[in-house]
Amino acid sequence: MRKPRVLVTSGDPGGVGPELVLRALADPGVGGLADFTVVGSPAGLRRDAAALGLPLPRILPVSDPSGALVSDPSVMPVSDPSGVPVGRPSAEGARAAVEAVRTALRLMAGKDADALVTAPVSKEALRLGGYPWPGQTEMLADLSAVGDLRVLLMAGPLRVVHVTAHRSLRSAIDAVTRASVLRTIELADGIGRRLLGRPPRVAVAGLNPHAGEHGILGDEDEQAIRPAVADARSRGIDASGPLSADTLFPRAAAGGTDLVVAMYHDQGHIPVKLLGPDEGVAVTLGLPFLRMSPDHGAAFDIAGKGVARAGSMKAAMRAAAEAAGREAAEAAGHDAADAKGAP
Amino acid sequence: MRKPRVLVTSGDPGGVGPELVLRALADPGVGGLADFTVVGSPAGLRRDAAALGLPLPRILPVSDPSGALVSDPSVMPVSDPSGVPVGRPSAEGARAAVEAVRTALRLMAGKDADALVTAPVSKEALRLGGYPWPGQTEMLADLSAVGDLRVLLMAGPLRVVHVTAHRSLRSAIDAVTRASVLRTIELADGIGRRLLGRPPRVAVAGLNPHAGEHGILGDEDEQAIRPAVADARSRGIDASGPLSADTLFPRAAAGGTDLVVAMYHDQGHIPVKLLGPDEGVAVTLGLPFLRMSPDHGAAFDIAGKGVARAGSMKAAMRAAAEAAGREAAEAAGHDAADAKGAP
Repeated sequence: MRKPRVLVTSGDPGGVGPELVLRALADPGVGGLADFTVVGSPAGLRRDAAALGLPLPRILPVSDPSGALVSDPSVMPVSDPSGVPVGRPSAEGARAAVEAVRTALRLMAGKDADALVTAPVSKEALRLGGYPWPGQTEMLADLSAVGDLRVLLMAGPLRVVHVTAHRSLRSAIDAVTRASVLRTIELADGIGRRLLGRPPRVAVAGLNPHAGEHGILGDEDEQAIRPAVADARSRGIDASGPLSADTLFPRAAAGGTDLVVAMYHDQGHIPVKLLGPDEGVAVTLGLPFLRMSPDHGAAFDIAGKGVARAGSMKAAMRAAAEAAGREAAEAAGHDAADAKGAP
Repeated sequence: MRKPRVLVTSGDPGGVGPELVLRALADPGVGGLADFTVVGSPAGLRRDAAALGLPLPRILPVSDPSGALVSDPSVMPVSDPSGVPVGRPSAEGARAAVEAVRTALRLMAGKDADALVTAPVSKEALRLGGYPWPGQTEMLADLSAVGDLRVLLMAGPLRVVHVTAHRSLRSAIDAVTRASVLRTIELADGIGRRLLGRPPRVAVAGLNPHAGEHGILGDEDEQAIRPAVADARSRGIDASGPLSADTLFPRAAAGGTDLVVAMYHDQGHIPVKLLGPDEGVAVTLGLPFLRMSPDHGAAFDIAGKGVARAGSMKAAMRAAAEAAGREAAEAAGHDAADAKGAP
């Protein structure tokens, strides 16, 4: 059975992206789990490999990208803009990061890899480069021509999918509708099956304190969330809720459910960051492929210094390799069964 | 120096209140910290003492309540309504609980004790008894003729004061005003001084994700919270914020601040319950005396069975004794200094 192939963009070369990627690849608990191909600017990778004494993967020739993918760790180079400043956001750094994502998307569209992990880019650099996206997730949605994404955050024992994320709390309440909650539960169920290899238990948090106490403390829990949970159950999903968020998270942390659906940013981010401060992984749901990213920014202030915490990048690459590997194994099993069953 | 005197109401006799009180008193790490006087129905206490093999404190004669307070653990009896059913909410159970609170309030008003700890009552029983209060805190506010209370939740390393609590999330946003945030910061500073014996560091959470990102994700952080923090600083309080809540709580848990001000119920309750699930203590701020309560309900389903988790009641009684003890010591110090300085 072949190993899964995972693409890893190295992010903004002026930030900690190249360091995170190299340190994760050098970890035997990560590097051996998949055929990793780094997509990014060779300059940043060369610089950090030399500065930190880390192995530099073989840099592939720029030719037919998919044909060049090989099984040992390698670098698929993107045009190296000269003069990316290290340690601060710049248009050049953003350009290199965007080029890496574009190349990776072409490879993912051609089914040349099983999952994508992205190192950090900078909101400020994207602005300096004149790009329209506030972050990499919006970039991926736009370049993949999909909308309506959701974010799953994983850390420690918790997996939390968010109905809404980066918007004001007031507008987040408005966006908690029966349809948006149902869509989130379906995406949570889908990623749960991919991550766990079985139908997951999905526990849905309430919006209001005590999940609204039957409508006494706000009506959204009864009007939007409870019907959405019923819809999901009628579609065969093992969903429950709305549940009081302050008692749900301790229960989830103790293994009492597989995934939590949170209504807004802080409701999900507070418990995840509290229980797994240095190992958070974000999974983007709704893209046509599996994409994971570390809970780490470009961190220009520590770029090239060898002090970035790579735990979250390692966790992202490990999770991508494991999920893709399970799917490859299942596909191989189906193929074998098909071959066996063929006349 | 005298020990502090702490009153402990035993709550609804049909629930776990009497058991929680007796088990906490029997713990040498709690019972010796103060002169505890239990205020409540003797029937429930007798029942649980017999069933669980726990010492029953001496039951005082019903006469002049304050004169009868003695230093060993004792019970100040309130009229024992016959026929309080065990294991379910009832009007009789609520009546006993309310009588205990009324008696305790008379003693507190007469400065006969230094702090009050209240065992659980039941919202449903209060309704059955025809009382107008949804919970014990509202009862205390009404009977003490004060409004505008705040709740401090403590567990593990966290102390969190809430600007709003039991109201819909939408109405909580409306209630986050410059004045309400400032009032909360002042109450947080005040209780911090009482609990720590020094001016505390108070970190104020933002309302919106990332504390609004300078107004991009909602304007409440800039319009209400930032000015309130500035007001508090101008009054000499060591306040900071608004701070992104998802990174603030991990920092607070690591000791990076003394108190957190949270804007709404779940923002504060999720981290507290996650880090200290069985030892949560609520402190009511704004009353004319120190009042603490365990993070535990009347739990009728396990009443009298000896399985209630008393950790949170013990923590409440310990915290009340320690805070009252510190104040008594400081008062004694002042008195001694005054006497010494007298001609």
